[in-house]
Amino acid sequence: MAVQTVATHTDLSLGPAAALSCRECGERFPLGPVFACEACFGPLEIAYDLPEGDPEELRKRIEAGPDSIWRYAPLLPVPADVAEKPNLNPGFTRLVKADNLARELGVTGGLYVKDDSGNPTHSFKDRVVAIAVEAARAFGFTTLSCSSTGNLAGAVGAAAARAGLRSCVFIPHDLEQGKVVMAAVYGGDLVGIEGTYDDVNRFCSELIGDPIGEGWGFVNVNLRPYYAEGSKTLAYEICEQLGWRLPDQLVVPIASGSQLTKIDKGLRELIALGLVEDRPYKIFGAQAEGCSPVARAFKDGHDVVRPVKPDTIAKSLAIGNPADGPYVLDIARRTGGAVEDVNDGQIVDAIKLLARTEGVFAETAGGVTVGVTRKLIEAGVLDPTLTTVVLNTGDGLKTLDAVAPTTGPSAIIRPNLDSFREAGLA
Amino acid sequence: MAVQTVATHTDLSLGPAAALSCRECGERFPLGPVFACEACFGPLEIAYDLPEGDPEELRKRIEAGPDSIWRYAPLLPVPADVAEKPNLNPGFTRLVKADNLARELGVTGGLYVKDDSGNPTHSFKDRVVAIAVEAARAFGFTTLSCSSTGNLAGAVGAAAARAGLRSCVFIPHDLEQGKVVMAAVYGGDLVGIEGTYDDVNRFCSELIGDPIGEGWGFVNVNLRPYYAEGSKTLAYEICEQLGWRLPDQLVVPIASGSQLTKIDKGLRELIALGLVEDRPYKIFGAQAEGCSPVARAFKDGHDVVRPVKPDTIAKSLAIGNPADGPYVLDIARRTGGAVEDVNDGQIVDAIKLLARTEGVFAETAGGVTVGVTRKLIEAGVLDPTLTTVVLNTGDGLKTLDAVAPTTGPSAIIRPNLDSFREAGLA
Repeated sequence: MAVQTVATHTDLSLGPAAALSCRECGERFPLGPVFACEACFGPLEIAYDLPEGDPEELRKRIEAGPDSIWRYAPLLPVPADVAEKPNLNPGFTRLVKADNLARELGVTGGLYVKDDSGNPTHSFKDRVVAIAVEAARAFGFTTLSCSSTGNLAGAVGAAAARAGLRSCVFIPHDLEQGKVVMAAVYGGDLVGIEGTYDDVNRFCSELIGDPIGEGWGFVNVNLRPYYAEGSKTLAYEICEQLGWRLPDQLVVPIASGSQLTKIDKGLRELIALGLVEDRPYKIFGAQAEGCSPVARAFKDGHDVVRPVKPDTIAKSLAIGNPADGPYVLDIARRTGGAVEDVNDGQIVDAIKLLARTEGVFAETAGGVTVGVTRKLIEAGVLDPTLTTVVLNTGDGLKTLDAVAPTTGPSAIIRPNLDSFREAGLA
Repeated sequence: MAVQTVATHTDLSLGPAAALSCRECGERFPLGPVFACEACFGPLEIAYDLPEGDPEELRKRIEAGPDSIWRYAPLLPVPADVAEKPNLNPGFTRLVKADNLARELGVTGGLYVKDDSGNPTHSFKDRVVAIAVEAARAFGFTTLSCSSTGNLAGAVGAAAARAGLRSCVFIPHDLEQGKVVMAAVYGGDLVGIEGTYDDVNRFCSELIGDPIGEGWGFVNVNLRPYYAEGSKTLAYEICEQLGWRLPDQLVVPIASGSQLTKIDKGLRELIALGLVEDRPYKIFGAQAEGCSPVARAFKDGHDVVRPVKPDTIAKSLAIGNPADGPYVLDIARRTGGAVEDVNDGQIVDAIKLLARTEGVFAETAGGVTVGVTRKLIEAGVLDPTLTTVVLNTGDGLKTLDAVAPTTGPSAIIRPNLDSFREAGLA
């Protein structure tokens, strides 16, 4: 991927964001729409000047803020007045105390589901895109773009519409009609590419390097360092909703691995700021067996992640060559967690289990985390006596096909009581 | 419909709910699972002993409550500790300041969209079902039931699952698979009835009168007086989110008409309690042209509503014989509002308009309210210089078919820059 050269932005108002720093060599760069280190090509991430002072005051300031991710604006690369700007105000979704599910799984230490299906376009992508929108505004971009096969396309289209930016989203031309409608309804440009998702990505990289791409912010490419920070808000919300307390165990899905690494970053920031007590937590990564390169590497004791060709119903997690895979391995090992996978049948069973016990209809990624939670408890790896938070990052309405073949009426009857009695449901 | 005889419940803890009272003759009855007046067969609704005292204290108590409808527990027929019980915690959804839409429609007085797609099962039905669940618990019911063709089935299934109640939901046997999946995934019983929706309703009435139906709470039949009160929370939230202020104008969809009447009830309660200033507001009802018996009666100056056979894409509003139609007419006329309708093409246009301007993807019912808002502004009926709130009561993901035929990619291209240039989107 080409490294874009950009003018230094000296008067950017991106709150506490101080610089970009390379995750590999530590080299620092001014804030700009770049994503790879000029020195070593490592990935760039945001370095902060975080607020100092009394944690109690910061807690109160956050609690008095809006019911969205913007309550954490002092910890995010966004301007202080971000909540006044037109955006989708995602986040502050429900943390469901899942007592029914806990009973089924034998968890006694408190089980919670962080349910991100409540976001505006019903996936956690609204969090990351909202941060990318602020970066796009700061850099003067006028078009918001991405490559996508699902959740991200809708999140970008919706966010751009509300922010008054043009959007141009690229998808493989043969996506299911439902996904196409969700991506197109917000009125931006939607371009079908004759090719695979890899072809779409290659085309986008070409576009960024071309004069046509000037003024374009690709949320998950040249705005990626900003975009990725949105996932930190999952960590902040979980801890605040637990009463400013770290959970003992978290189960997080892995696609690129970015979300898991940023949740870890968010937890460490809360500790550093004194907002939560400093004590150990374990992070567990969850993959689908049909795309489990990180789980494979974890189990084999490897530090490198060998790419795979995805084949799973959990399409939102189907990244065969996850960029943040090695960092995920580090975090799972450092915190005493693990990375595990479940097969498609176990994913479907877990979606139904969560729906039946808690009334939460998760997308396949939620089936992966709940399924992995069950598997890790049965294997004695996840401790059922500790407080555990499981992420559901999307909405079952978007992956109906996964459960449709095995989900239907208990009975079909004629409209009379005798027929109902015969069905054995009375 | 048969009037169920029930034991008097003297030790019910349903908060400020004091009795059932007949909306026609005013006769009072003890709280119980009954829905029609023994004296005149009029509909029963909840009468309250509402809290007295300093409005400022009540406001503070509400503001310190949970981020759900339970912050208004002192004004609802639910126990004081309702937030501690397992339920879906619906409500406190976003009130979107729709400045982009306002510009398109020429509204200068402030335009807001109350977006109920953020509820747990993505429609306002979660509000009403949550209240019905508390009534079911109070009356010792063990099965939660309803007849439904869509949103309600999922809301009942999910709420029952979380509450630990059995659910048994009745639907026409030939519903689209997507709706069946959404209704069945929560693991309760789902029964397809060989017949029309009317046949389903007749069967349910029979079931309530039969010994089989003992212990069954039909949310929109024998629990209807409780259930309906859930819509008051829309009024409460809108006013609180406006800074404890009444909007000047509200645009509300009409199916049975219950929601509109309860929003009016909620606004009057807030005035009576001193929580908002007592000043005029206008309520506008919105219907689809293919099912607009109330709009017809309003325009013709009639007090009675003549039933129609529905034929519209707005299926969640397709009630041809709306029970609360006459009350809706009263309210529209008393407040100086109106009842208007839009055709299917206008509904689709309005869905796209809202998506394109605010990033909110509404179900067809939201297209009806936005479309009617536009029509009423153009007709000079709705005053664009006043604060206006438009309701979106459901989610576009559930009615994809409405927009699918006219929503697709801007272009299909080959994966190279020349092909992109040729498409004219660069």
